[in-house]
Amino acid sequence: MTTAAKIAVIGLGAMGYGMASSCLRAGHQVWGVDVAPEPVERFRADGGQAGELKEIAGTLDVVVVSVLNADQTAAVLFGPQGVAPLMKEGSVVVACATVSPDFARTMASQCGERGLLYLDAPISGGAAKAAQGQLSIMAAGSEAAFDAAAPALDAMAESLFRLGEVGAGSAMKAVNQLLAGVHIAALAEAMTFGMTQGVSPEKFLEVIPQCAGTSWMLENRGPHIAAGDYTPLSQVNIWPKDLGIVLDIARNAKFSAPLTAAALQQFLAAAGMGLGGQDDSAVAKVYARNAGLTLPGDE
Amino acid sequence: MTTAAKIAVIGLGAMGYGMASSCLRAGHQVWGVDVAPEPVERFRADGGQAGELKEIAGTLDVVVVSVLNADQTAAVLFGPQGVAPLMKEGSVVVACATVSPDFARTMASQCGERGLLYLDAPISGGAAKAAQGQLSIMAAGSEAAFDAAAPALDAMAESLFRLGEVGAGSAMKAVNQLLAGVHIAALAEAMTFGMTQGVSPEKFLEVIPQCAGTSWMLENRGPHIAAGDYTPLSQVNIWPKDLGIVLDIARNAKFSAPLTAAALQQFLAAAGMGLGGQDDSAVAKVYARNAGLTLPGDE
Repeated sequence: MTTAAKIAVIGLGAMGYGMASSCLRAGHQVWGVDVAPEPVERFRADGGQAGELKEIAGTLDVVVVSVLNADQTAAVLFGPQGVAPLMKEGSVVVACATVSPDFARTMASQCGERGLLYLDAPISGGAAKAAQGQLSIMAAGSEAAFDAAAPALDAMAESLFRLGEVGAGSAMKAVNQLLAGVHIAALAEAMTFGMTQGVSPEKFLEVIPQCAGTSWMLENRGPHIAAGDYTPLSQVNIWPKDLGIVLDIARNAKFSAPLTAAALQQFLAAAGMGLGGQDDSAVAKVYARNAGLTLPGDE
Repeated sequence: MTTAAKIAVIGLGAMGYGMASSCLRAGHQVWGVDVAPEPVERFRADGGQAGELKEIAGTLDVVVVSVLNADQTAAVLFGPQGVAPLMKEGSVVVACATVSPDFARTMASQCGERGLLYLDAPISGGAAKAAQGQLSIMAAGSEAAFDAAAPALDAMAESLFRLGEVGAGSAMKAVNQLLAGVHIAALAEAMTFGMTQGVSPEKFLEVIPQCAGTSWMLENRGPHIAAGDYTPLSQVNIWPKDLGIVLDIARNAKFSAPLTAAALQQFLAAAGMGLGGQDDSAVAKVYARNAGLTLPGDE
C-alpha cells in the first residue's frame, strides 16, 4: 500500500476490534464505531480517528461491517442511522457477518442502487487471528469491489478466497459453520462418552489427535474441556444463531441435514442451562449432566 | 529384534494381510490364516510359512487376530476350531477387532484361565498404513502381554499407545470410531449442502481444509466424493457395525449420543441403497438422493 485509505470498522467486538487494529497497523486512517462507548474510546486511544460516523461517512473509502447477524447488518447499513446513504459513490461495503446468501444478495442490490460496491466477506479464524491480521476471508463480489476493498482486505486477511458472485462467500461460510458446529458437539460427545468408559480427557487428547478421528475443532476446543476453562473465546450463543442460519438455508433448499439438527439441539440445551455466554466447548456440560459425569473444573 | 519370533496372523483381509506382511518384513516366521484359500496361498508365495494352524499353534509366540468383529474374534479363539486351547502357556493373543470393552475383558479372562496373555489392541490407520507397518495401535494389557507381543507390535505399529488395563484399548477405539463416523457423515452433509448453494466439491476442498471446519476425515474422504471414486478403501458396511458398537456401549452406560445416532442412520440408509460395499464416502449419495443433487461421476 502506497496510499493510506480511509476505513471505518462498524462493530468493535472480539473480531471487529482486531480487524480495526490490523487496518490501523497497516497505516490507514481508521474510525472505530460501536454502540458501546468503551471500545470506541479505547480504539481512539490506540490511534484511531476521532469524529462521528455521520460526519465523516462521505469521505470513507471502505466500510467494514463486523456485527453479529443479518438484522444488525441491515440496521447499520440502511436503518435510521444507516451509513450507506451517506457514503460516496464507488466506495465499498465489506460485510463480514454470517448471513444467508439471499440476504447478502439483497444488501448488495440495495448498495448497488446507491452506486456503492459490496463485498460478501464472511470471516473465519477467531479473535486472535483477527488481531494479528491473519483472518481467512471467504469473499465474493465484483472485481471492482475487491479492488476498492483491497486496503482493508490486505490488512485483515492471511487467506483471501475469491469465490465468485455475491452470495458465494456466505454460502461457503455456512458450509464451514455447519462443519465447525457439528465438530464441536462431536468432540463433546466423544470426550464425555470416553469418560463413561474410563478414558480421561487427558488420555483422549494424547491419543485422538494422532488418529483418524481428529478435527481442527477437536484440537482447538478439546483442551478447554480438559482444563475446565470456559473463558468465552467463542460463545455457545454463536451456534444457535449460525446453525440456525444453516438450517434456514437448508430448509429453503429442501435439504435434510440431520447431524446439523442434532448439534443445534445440543447447543440449545447448553444455552437453556444458562451457558450461552461461556466458551462453546461448554456444550460438553450438556452431555455430562445427562450422563451424571463430573467434568474437569467441576469437582 | 535379535531373535525371529513365531507369529500367526488370523484374518488376511485388507488390514490383516498388511500386518502379516509387516511381520514378515521384520524377519519373523509368520503364518497367514484365513477362511479363504486365496490370500493364504498368496501370503505363502510372499514368504509366509506353510503348515496348518492346528499343527503349529503350540509353537507360536504371538497370535494376531485381525477379523471383523467380536463374534469372529470369539470363534477364532474359542470356537470349535479355536486356536487358544492349542497355544502354549505364556504366549500372547493380540486382538485387533473393534469390540466392546466388556467383550475384551471377557476374552482376556478366558485367555488368562489357560495361561495365555492378552493384548486389547484395536488398530487405526487403514490398509496402506497396515501394509507399511505404520499403524496406530490403541493397546491395553499387562506389561507381560506388551513384552510378549513386542515382536509383532514393533513390526506393525508406528504409534503404540499404552492405555492401561484390558478394555481401555477398545474404549479408546470406540471413541475414535464415534468421531470418525460422525466426521465422514458431516463431510457428506456439508459438501452436498454446499452444492445446493452453488459451492462445488472442488471449491469446497480448496477452502474448507484451510478453515476451522476441517477434519482428518474431511481431507481424506472429501477427494473421493469430488472425484466420484468409491473404490472401497474403507466400506460403508464398517459404520453400521462400529457405530452400532459405540451405541451399544453408550446405551449400557445410559449415555445419550445424538450425533452418533444421526450418523448411524445415514450409513444405514447408504447400506439400504445397496452401497454397503462401496467406499464409506458413498454416504454422500444418501444426501444427494434426498436433495435431488447429481454428484461427480453420476452425470
